[in-house]
Amino acid sequence: MELYLIRHGIAADRDADANDEERPLTNKGHKKTTKVAKQLRDRGLRFDLILTSPLVRAKETATILKEAGLASQVEEFAALAPDGDIQAWVDWLEKRRQTSSGDKCLALVGHQPDLGNWAETLVWGKAQNKLLLKKAGAIGLKSPDTKPLIGQSELFLLLSPKWLL
Amino acid sequence: MELYLIRHGIAADRDADANDEERPLTNKGHKKTTKVAKQLRDRGLRFDLILTSPLVRAKETATILKEAGLASQVEEFAALAPDGDIQAWVDWLEKRRQTSSGDKCLALVGHQPDLGNWAETLVWGKAQNKLLLKKAGAIGLKSPDTKPLIGQSELFLLLSPKWLL
Repeated sequence: MELYLIRHGIAADRDADANDEERPLTNKGHKKTTKVAKQLRDRGLRFDLILTSPLVRAKETATILKEAGLASQVEEFAALAPDGDIQAWVDWLEKRRQTSSGDKCLALVGHQPDLGNWAETLVWGKAQNKLLLKKAGAIGLKSPDTKPLIGQSELFLLLSPKWLL
Repeated sequence: MELYLIRHGIAADRDADANDEERPLTNKGHKKTTKVAKQLRDRGLRFDLILTSPLVRAKETATILKEAGLASQVEEFAALAPDGDIQAWVDWLEKRRQTSSGDKCLALVGHQPDLGNWAETLVWGKAQNKLLLKKAGAIGLKSPDTKPLIGQSELFLLLSPKWLL
């Protein structure tokens, strides 16, 4: 199974008065993320499902990916929020792997440094904060269909928008 | 400093009668590598120097990168051959770092699984054979300007030709 960990696009600045969870993508973030999504689609990428962090900037990114034709289904998943719990979504994924008819390719939309650290954990067994992932960038992992996900995956993609636009 | 580890393009099949070191790129390999090189150049990439494995398929790849305008200088480096010695080129690089006027960006052209294992060694301190790198694909590392290279670098790019073409 392939797993894509995708970081949300450029969002409005943090504002002392506003709720971080509500920050939307900027116009620039929206446009750039849309271009990235179309490039990924044109290269044949399709997701069986997109899971997204419940924060606005992530949900907007997931919607852009869906509307570009990368998936027909988006679901919010609380554990993908900042400082989220890798074990929660890995458990969910390993369970789904046993019961569903077999996903080929899933996307998770979330935040840094979590996504980079989660990728390191899936591939090398622990997080060391050494994967640099730009906004609207993507990490691609090849994960085993039967073995535990953690420490058993391989990395085949680490992409920033620069290389697609 | 940025380090790009680039795998040679598609080469002629192994042949019991022929010397592995002499295998050239195929026509398809030549064309695809040329397209990749132009895409990288068009995105602003430039190397201060390209070091290449002495094997024909790597040297041809390095020449393509040079001719696309990615660098003006190519040098052969024996330690980049298959099963090459990471310590040899890291020592060379750390020495060059002290004496040269300051490279911003270097490319090394070589082979799998060495390149993936070397990247893991530079970033995480040891090779685990978990970075998948396609032919004519590239790994991008951000390496420290003063500290030792091994175990101190960060990964910002893992790219296969598919995403550029």
